[in-house]
Amino acid sequence: MSGEVIRCKAAVAREAGKPLVIEEVEVAPPQKMEVRLKILFTSLCHTDVYFWEAKGQNPLFPRILGHEAGGIVESVGEGVTDLKPGDKVLPIFTGECGECRHCKSEDSNMCDLLRINTDRGVMINDGKSRFSKDGEPIYHFLGTSTFSEYTVVHSGCVAKINPDAPLDKVCVLSCGISTGMGATLNVAKPKKGMSVAIFGLGAVGLAAAEGAHIAGASRIIGIDLNASRAEEAKKFGVTEFVNPKDHDKPIEQVIAAMTDGGVDRSVECTGNVKAMISAFECVHDGWGVAVLVGVPNKDDEFKTLPINFLNERTLKGTFFGNYKPRTDIPGVVEKYMNKELEVEKFITHNIGFSEINKAFDYMLKGESLRCVIRMDA
Amino acid sequence: MSGEVIRCKAAVAREAGKPLVIEEVEVAPPQKMEVRLKILFTSLCHTDVYFWEAKGQNPLFPRILGHEAGGIVESVGEGVTDLKPGDKVLPIFTGECGECRHCKSEDSNMCDLLRINTDRGVMINDGKSRFSKDGEPIYHFLGTSTFSEYTVVHSGCVAKINPDAPLDKVCVLSCGISTGMGATLNVAKPKKGMSVAIFGLGAVGLAAAEGAHIAGASRIIGIDLNASRAEEAKKFGVTEFVNPKDHDKPIEQVIAAMTDGGVDRSVECTGNVKAMISAFECVHDGWGVAVLVGVPNKDDEFKTLPINFLNERTLKGTFFGNYKPRTDIPGVVEKYMNKELEVEKFITHNIGFSEINKAFDYMLKGESLRCVIRMDA
Repeated sequence: MSGEVIRCKAAVAREAGKPLVIEEVEVAPPQKMEVRLKILFTSLCHTDVYFWEAKGQNPLFPRILGHEAGGIVESVGEGVTDLKPGDKVLPIFTGECGECRHCKSEDSNMCDLLRINTDRGVMINDGKSRFSKDGEPIYHFLGTSTFSEYTVVHSGCVAKINPDAPLDKVCVLSCGISTGMGATLNVAKPKKGMSVAIFGLGAVGLAAAEGAHIAGASRIIGIDLNASRAEEAKKFGVTEFVNPKDHDKPIEQVIAAMTDGGVDRSVECTGNVKAMISAFECVHDGWGVAVLVGVPNKDDEFKTLPINFLNERTLKGTFFGNYKPRTDIPGVVEKYMNKELEVEKFITHNIGFSEINKAFDYMLKGESLRCVIRMDA
Repeated sequence: MSGEVIRCKAAVAREAGKPLVIEEVEVAPPQKMEVRLKILFTSLCHTDVYFWEAKGQNPLFPRILGHEAGGIVESVGEGVTDLKPGDKVLPIFTGECGECRHCKSEDSNMCDLLRINTDRGVMINDGKSRFSKDGEPIYHFLGTSTFSEYTVVHSGCVAKINPDAPLDKVCVLSCGISTGMGATLNVAKPKKGMSVAIFGLGAVGLAAAEGAHIAGASRIIGIDLNASRAEEAKKFGVTEFVNPKDHDKPIEQVIAAMTDGGVDRSVECTGNVKAMISAFECVHDGWGVAVLVGVPNKDDEFKTLPINFLNERTLKGTFFGNYKPRTDIPGVVEKYMNKELEVEKFITHNIGFSEINKAFDYMLKGESLRCVIRMDA
């Protein structure tokens, strides 16, 4: 069907906060440097929910959400040489053009051309959507729109992975799990035997804990306001659980008291600005490194006394765990294939595409880490 | 004279902001783990002036100030095995016990035992001063008190250097120059060809620029409110000078416009909290690293939007350029001996000890970088 419009099912968000509607849509062929993917599995991430609720964002509807997924290349557009029909891939919500200063830097993954853009609902090649229904365009989301049986993605946003990898498992590596794990392994970089504090024990935070566990951290202190996280967190290497509600003192002081002056590393996965400040102030002077992952409200300010820096603490932020989508994500999949990384424990629910709205319920109720959605069911 | 009290000349600060008084004082012998040094050259640093003015500090008088210096070991106390009379040394205002977690960490130089303590005016061994006049104790300063022909220092605060090193030159390496140069070389770590912004072009800032020059930076942008710094700064590798007074836009925007989005590294040497924020916000997203050196007013808060971190910027603070006093400073002296580092250009004035108050005048008028004081003149 290369070069032709495909008609298929998609879950369309037509209104903020209203259940998605499974509809038949038309998916145009891929243009220059684009590929059309057949999505086999997708999962739901907080970012989808956030833009679906559209509380703090420009509402952009109708839109096809979804960005954590795995699929197969159906066809490729002009100029695409590194992907071909049949390749097993993960679409990624941010890209890697390979040519810009960021792509050429060892340190950055914030590609000038294909960096995440939450406001854009169209393809960059022609500023138009590839999705439509009865002639009405439907907006894209994060350049991925994986809540559709077929989608069109820029080829720079596609990681070609091991053809043996099971997509129903590794699909969750295309966003949250890599974000958390990479924050620890690539940015906080704890040395063997170090102590690590993880703020927020959702999927991203638990992946950050898993990263600390893989790195050989001796103590992994999980911090969450929800006491029910304590038991589950053990599976991800968390050795001690702290609930700020159980303490009168600021949490950074609680952690300093537990660790003879502070943890060696911390990773902040809540996006709450107070938690960010605590995550920074709880690291040990002399060598402590704090890493910010969670995205805050737009106007919240990070505030601290400069002496906290001058006493030789480091604060870094990260985006997508500092992984370059095309270069590095295939290696993350290999970690799963080599059994260095277990992803099954992140997958708490499996449902069929027709039930996709259940995934939103599970997440809003805090019941799920990841709910994997099978597109052909 | 080992084991006996030495009578010698010292410049005593008896009152905040009043000229030092050259007096004959008594210097007790070194106790356990202490050494008594004959100071040959000392120089004046802003920190001396700050505590002499005692505006924001607990006044502690009478006190013998001074901490940048070079000298010879006169005698050693019980337990000192790595120093002997005649060793050429630099006293350092912070120490290295060699035993604590900081000394054992590769990353820290903030020794638990001997870390800088600006409030302490006595030796840690017995909580008493080794200086007195007619039975009245005179307080120490930073554990060094180098404005005296003889002084007593903890052996962990003494760097043993190349016996061929000229003390009238390398004495300035015991504080400010190492602080600035180390901030760049050890903490900001620019790669060859990178751009570096230096905020504040006093001696520390110029040393930071010199570090960037040594590292092979392609552009070194110096920022100072004093236009007269522009010409001198060229000697230290500064390629472009920016005076915030010449611009309506915030300085971080001026720098971003000059550098296609931001500098690769910045080093803040003023201690002004607004400059700190600008120094952070002017580094490029994706890979930029900002380093704080200058010490702010106690209550000034560092504030920024978390997105500035999340876009993969790093903010670090440093203390004494992250050099370990005993382990690393001898190597800094070797850089001078090998002609990798020129210190002469930092030394704008040379005076005799009897004229020490002139050094304060030069600094207060902004005329000097470093004024070296010869003790026997």
